[in-house]
Amino acid sequence: MTLLSHSSPEITSVADLRLRYHSVRANSEALAAPLSPEDQVVQSMPDASPTKWHLAHTTWFFETFLLMPHLPDYQAFDPAFSYLFNSYYEAVGPRQPRPLRGLITRPSAAEVLAYRAHVDAGMARLLNMQLQELVPLVELGLAHEEQHQELILMDILHLFSCSPLSPAYRQNPAQARPDYRPVEWRSVAGGIVEVGSDGGGFIFDNETPRHKVYLQPYALADRLVTNGEWLAFMADGGYRRPELWLSDGWAKTQAENWQSPLYWRQEEQESWSAMGLEGRAKIDPNAPVLHVSYYEAAAYAEWAGARLPTESEWEHAAATVAGLSELYAEAWQWTRSAYDAYPGFHASAGAVGEYNGKFMVGQMSLRGGSSITPVGHTRATYRNFFPPSARWMFSGVRLAREAT
Amino acid sequence: MTLLSHSSPEITSVADLRLRYHSVRANSEALAAPLSPEDQVVQSMPDASPTKWHLAHTTWFFETFLLMPHLPDYQAFDPAFSYLFNSYYEAVGPRQPRPLRGLITRPSAAEVLAYRAHVDAGMARLLNMQLQELVPLVELGLAHEEQHQELILMDILHLFSCSPLSPAYRQNPAQARPDYRPVEWRSVAGGIVEVGSDGGGFIFDNETPRHKVYLQPYALADRLVTNGEWLAFMADGGYRRPELWLSDGWAKTQAENWQSPLYWRQEEQESWSAMGLEGRAKIDPNAPVLHVSYYEAAAYAEWAGARLPTESEWEHAAATVAGLSELYAEAWQWTRSAYDAYPGFHASAGAVGEYNGKFMVGQMSLRGGSSITPVGHTRATYRNFFPPSARWMFSGVRLAREAT
Amino acid sequence: MTLLSHSSPEITSVADLRLRYHSVRANSEALAAPLSPEDQVVQSMPDASPTKWHLAHTTWFFETFLLMPHLPDYQAFDPAFSYLFNSYYEAVGPRQPRPLRGLITRPSAAEVLAYRAHVDAGMARLLNMQLQELVPLVELGLAHEEQHQELILMDILHLFSCSPLSPAYRQNPAQARPDYRPVEWRSVAGGIVEVGSDGGGFIFDNETPRHKVYLQPYALADRLVTNGEWLAFMADGGYRRPELWLSDGWAKTQAENWQSPLYWRQEEQESWSAMGLEGRAKIDPNAPVLHVSYYEAAAYAEWAGARLPTESEWEHAAATVAGLSELYAEAWQWTRSAYDAYPGFHASAGAVGEYNGKFMVGQMSLRGGSSITPVGHTRATYRNFFPPSARWMFSGVRLAREAT
Amino acid sequence: MTLLSHSSPEITSVADLRLRYHSVRANSEALAAPLSPEDQVVQSMPDASPTKWHLAHTTWFFETFLLMPHLPDYQAFDPAFSYLFNSYYEAVGPRQPRPLRGLITRPSAAEVLAYRAHVDAGMARLLNMQLQELVPLVELGLAHEEQHQELILMDILHLFSCSPLSPAYRQNPAQARPDYRPVEWRSVAGGIVEVGSDGGGFIFDNETPRHKVYLQPYALADRLVTNGEWLAFMADGGYRRPELWLSDGWAKTQAENWQSPLYWRQEEQESWSAMGLEGRAKIDPNAPVLHVSYYEAAAYAEWAGARLPTESEWEHAAATVAGLSELYAEAWQWTRSAYDAYPGFHASAGAVGEYNGKFMVGQMSLRGGSSITPVGHTRATYRNFFPPSARWMFSGVRLAREAT
Repeated sequence: MTLLSHSSPEITSVADLRLRYHSVRANSEALAAPLSPEDQVVQSMPDASPTKWHLAHTTWFFETFLLMPHLPDYQAFDPAFSYLFNSYYEAVGPRQPRPLRGLITRPSAAEVLAYRAHVDAGMARLLNMQLQELVPLVELGLAHEEQHQELILMDILHLFSCSPLSPAYRQNPAQARPDYRPVEWRSVAGGIVEVGSDGGGFIFDNETPRHKVYLQPYALADRLVTNGEWLAFMADGGYRRPELWLSDGWAKTQAENWQSPLYWRQEEQESWSAMGLEGRAKIDPNAPVLHVSYYEAAAYAEWAGARLPTESEWEHAAATVAGLSELYAEAWQWTRSAYDAYPGFHASAGAVGEYNGKFMVGQMSLRGGSSITPVGHTRATYRNFFPPSARWMFSGVRLAREAT
Repeated sequence: MTLLSHSSPEITSVADLRLRYHSVRANSEALAAPLSPEDQVVQSMPDASPTKWHLAHTTWFFETFLLMPHLPDYQAFDPAFSYLFNSYYEAVGPRQPRPLRGLITRPSAAEVLAYRAHVDAGMARLLNMQLQELVPLVELGLAHEEQHQELILMDILHLFSCSPLSPAYRQNPAQARPDYRPVEWRSVAGGIVEVGSDGGGFIFDNETPRHKVYLQPYALADRLVTNGEWLAFMADGGYRRPELWLSDGWAKTQAENWQSPLYWRQEEQESWSAMGLEGRAKIDPNAPVLHVSYYEAAAYAEWAGARLPTESEWEHAAATVAGLSELYAEAWQWTRSAYDAYPGFHASAGAVGEYNGKFMVGQMSLRGGSSITPVGHTRATYRNFFPPSARWMFSGVRLAREAT
Repeated sequence: MTLLSHSSPEITSVADLRLRYHSVRANSEALAAPLSPEDQVVQSMPDASPTKWHLAHTTWFFETFLLMPHLPDYQAFDPAFSYLFNSYYEAVGPRQPRPLRGLITRPSAAEVLAYRAHVDAGMARLLNMQLQELVPLVELGLAHEEQHQELILMDILHLFSCSPLSPAYRQNPAQARPDYRPVEWRSVAGGIVEVGSDGGGFIFDNETPRHKVYLQPYALADRLVTNGEWLAFMADGGYRRPELWLSDGWAKTQAENWQSPLYWRQEEQESWSAMGLEGRAKIDPNAPVLHVSYYEAAAYAEWAGARLPTESEWEHAAATVAGLSELYAEAWQWTRSAYDAYPGFHASAGAVGEYNGKFMVGQMSLRGGSSITPVGHTRATYRNFFPPSARWMFSGVRLAREAT
Repeated sequence: MTLLSHSSPEITSVADLRLRYHSVRANSEALAAPLSPEDQVVQSMPDASPTKWHLAHTTWFFETFLLMPHLPDYQAFDPAFSYLFNSYYEAVGPRQPRPLRGLITRPSAAEVLAYRAHVDAGMARLLNMQLQELVPLVELGLAHEEQHQELILMDILHLFSCSPLSPAYRQNPAQARPDYRPVEWRSVAGGIVEVGSDGGGFIFDNETPRHKVYLQPYALADRLVTNGEWLAFMADGGYRRPELWLSDGWAKTQAENWQSPLYWRQEEQESWSAMGLEGRAKIDPNAPVLHVSYYEAAAYAEWAGARLPTESEWEHAAATVAGLSELYAEAWQWTRSAYDAYPGFHASAGAVGEYNGKFMVGQMSLRGGSSITPVGHTRATYRNFFPPSARWMFSGVRLAREAT
């Protein structure tokens, strides 16, 4: 996920910002509350990070980019944290290698909470200074922390999926879903349309500049692919038929023996369970499929006689077409578009903006939002991105096709 | 490289086709002529293939898709070759794993030539049958063989670069090049333009359908980046400054200790040589840089205050703008576009068309052609593609920028 | 380390055994006391295990081999623990893969202490039953736990060495050591001698049977190689001269860029520090060198014009020769003997004895004991063993040579 | 295999040596004669080397250690060959990395034969000079070349086993073998015996010094384990029962899915074939099993209620006990002894002797000889050695047990 925003043209009042700061920061700690110190320290794979690291890294962001340069007399909580909790900002100096984040048993979870309190106190002082020019950077820090809130849940689910005990992060009873109905296709005329943000509110820089694209006529499915549909794909040999797959995807399924979405397990003939934040449970055929890679999404679309939408198609439809459900609150939706720079995109200056485009190769864009995305975090222009083989995020599938 | 074509609307006369068949086939054998049996059997890395494999695989294509189904009473030269020389057609059955192609010491180079003669005799009979409906498939087989002609040279150069003896494939004296002059920028207005092939002649299916795109105004460099300019990039710390690089690219440079283009070697302070088909020679500052990855091309562009062109920008300019040199005969030019499906692209049916889009993820498009591309093989709509880390093809850089 | 004992001919009184049980079990918990829950859960490399795993696995041993089969009405604390905390007993069923032990965040450290208390209560009941035939198995469980006590400290040191904060496990001030004096050589006559245990007390089965060997005359150094001597080896190019090294050892130094013992770091020209249980400190030239592999030990011996002792030489001298210091309380001493079966060795029956000899290939024997070995745990016949590349145990060097 | 000899006390006459030189050198070329240039250049795995490399490396040995230092006015055939064809002599300078030997397509096979002729001419001149002091070095070069003759056949078999065509290196009809009879055990009294060479003829230095060892009474099987017996082991779950295996061995079988000796293939239920130098053929139950690792040999012995012999046991029995068949001409016989230095072993000086003991860790000793070992090459004191996982040599099993 990118971290960096354009300055927002709407001026947020400092009072509002202070409220929002406290709300976002409290939410992060609430997410960690059900977790033991052990749960918070372990890193279950190189792509994931410990909860404690997320809590500290989001705090490091405020300390490094706001308190250190802008709050007079601010004393860093611990100078070593700059090394431990930097993620990938080369300009800020060296850092703990990502695959080794799980070796940081000290500071403890309790010390990280103290670090958070120290920085929050500093931020309270800074916000009282009413420095209007820092508002965009604070907003960026908060949006950054919201991204890490989603990562906390993704990463904990992966960790818990590795335990033979299948622990539950939370106890929410699964809500009963109605039987899914056939997809309805929403047609879109195409032509020259505009995509990208025109800046009305906080945005990340990769959403800009707003620009014209030309779209052929197309249609989008009104809902996401369900687990029931995915089971039909599996039953029809979906994971065993190379002709459905991209070459790299087929190689991956063979190398890692994929036979279902991530976290699924065959309990007995015909019955499947999935690991989720509520623990392991029987698959609900009416729920949207989750935890599929781009390779799987593309193979499914091929099997279904459809395709995945492009980023522009998705965004234009999300912004203008009625009748599309499950846009933002179920699963991120793979697009067939590689994540890249919009025409005219330019990186910001300085450490915060050092790497605006540094992830713009080798990854695919996803759009929408998921059930674990913080409320209010996404919008039609929001661009999420992951490598085509990634599956531990809450990713799903919305089909597209040429207009008939 | 993709292999599959749309049927060509221009009807080639069978007599012309027969001539072209013999010419292309003879060219392949001429390329192998300077090579010993040992040179032709070794595989120097998983991405490369032995010359002998190329000679046999292109022959297998004609045997499998033309002679077996269409020539009455045709007897396969050796049934085992179907396994040995299939490349990646899953529908045609199992095959020798790609990284193990170099273990096939038998059949010998001489036997492969006998195989070629056997298939050529069959093809002569088939071409005499005047089956007009097979013309596109024959044309496809020839275009396919031309692609492998370029691969033969790429792969031999890689093999020879691994030898401490730096053998020369050929003796061509390097031609003296004039000193390079400053880049001139060719501005293009943009707006709605059409890209992709409208089918006037042989094409691969990934060039279709022709479709509209919207381009912002832009400018292209009239020539390619030179070795001299690349040396300046290196001297300015180009390979040591993470802020210039995409994240994946920086990781690759660190993991593999890249400090120059592939095949370059520092001979003494300030002096560099490069391995080429003529053996190892001093770098010519006036020649276009070769053997750079997408990561390097993008880092160079960042350093130069420019960017790489998109596929559409390149194609539209190549087709409509005067004053662009070095389009087709020096080096393939990286674009910033991921290789993907054009709007409305559909795969052909059957084994030949089984995998039209199977490579459409994880690779970047290159445009133009190189000094080792067979004459007449490329065109403005032609799409070449490689992973962003690949360097053993003859790849170079043409810069682009926003129009001023 | 092996785990399995011959039955002991000396009958331990049950009252003594109960005292020893409580003492050993309490010592394990005392070792863990300075560690946070986070410290206890992380696995820093596949060869190491989390403290929590050690505490639970040693408990699992008593539950599986004593309580389950022998204590009427015993209820397992948690049936899942049989999977989680088995180490490598194939006959007892499947188990958590060793490299993934660090993913077990639950049960928590507190729950593992409850598990220990539950098993200790069961063991108290069992020991009250006065079952003399179980004494050897209880003794084995305690010796097994003592081995894991040493592993706890080895593994925590490795974990802490991975932290940029270099945390100290304990605060012991380093004691001042006198300047080391020249080695004195203790000559031994050789001839037919006996090695291996004759069973007077608890022993592991790999120490038996006692048997005759023929020794040529030899001499052993009276003390261990010091850090000061090791610095001289380094200064003389010890890590850069292939002629001093075994072929596999040289390959390892090159692949992993070894330039000193494990945990050493060059602070500035001529000055080195080492990470230890007391944190990072300046090298003491008078202390025995620690954390060297067999490869390094053998290279050092070659450089010093000496060799390493055989197992038999070490044991015979330790048992019979006066004037040898630092036998058991500084560092395990590499021998030049591969760890193998004594003549006439036979494996015990059943799960406890399932794998008596299963580690008897690819490892080298070490003799003596180290500063972190529990007091009373070792003896002259005790055989420790590790792969020749291992360095995280407290291993050092005692030289040998032919008698003059 | 080691390469280095003690000087031989028996003086070979120069005339005899000249004859032997020509005989050994001609044998190498005869072994290569059935192979195409392609067969001779490919390296099928890092442990194997191309035939051409063997032919050149053995020649390099004579050029480097005899002609360059001792033949006045000798001109090296090609100075680059010193780099290309050095194996592992660090003191002689850098060299082509072992896993990349297969990339050396030039010089061609024909040029290597020319190299051999050039060196043979030089050697003829040198041998005419009657330099008695060079005799041991010439003998060493010839023994070295004989070792490489066996490697040529091992490596070619591995290469051919990788071809779907299963080519035959030679056409020898398999001789009919009588049905195997039950093993008879030859008992040996033990006590103090002497092993190692006392120097009567050419020997390698690792066979010295002759020394006393103490042996417990033991018995050896009079013949090798047969394929028929091995099939019984397999039928009894030999490859699926962890309790039979050393821990490292079990891990290897699981990681590489071993289910039979190397080169075996199940043709249909109950029927197995094996790849050999004569191509692929049905398993002969009466022939000794070949191509088993130490791990497999030890598991088989465990299954059979026996064990493998030690080096000393094997050598003492081979030298003194009647009734042992298949000692030298069927299969190398794994011992349970790690390959190490004899008491009092000292390395020779200079490049030839640089690395006398450099392989003395991590490998197991084999004794005897195989069907592809040059006649006259082995003897009772000869020590062969390979890592415990190696299977591509002609290795088999002779059982031992304690004396009853």
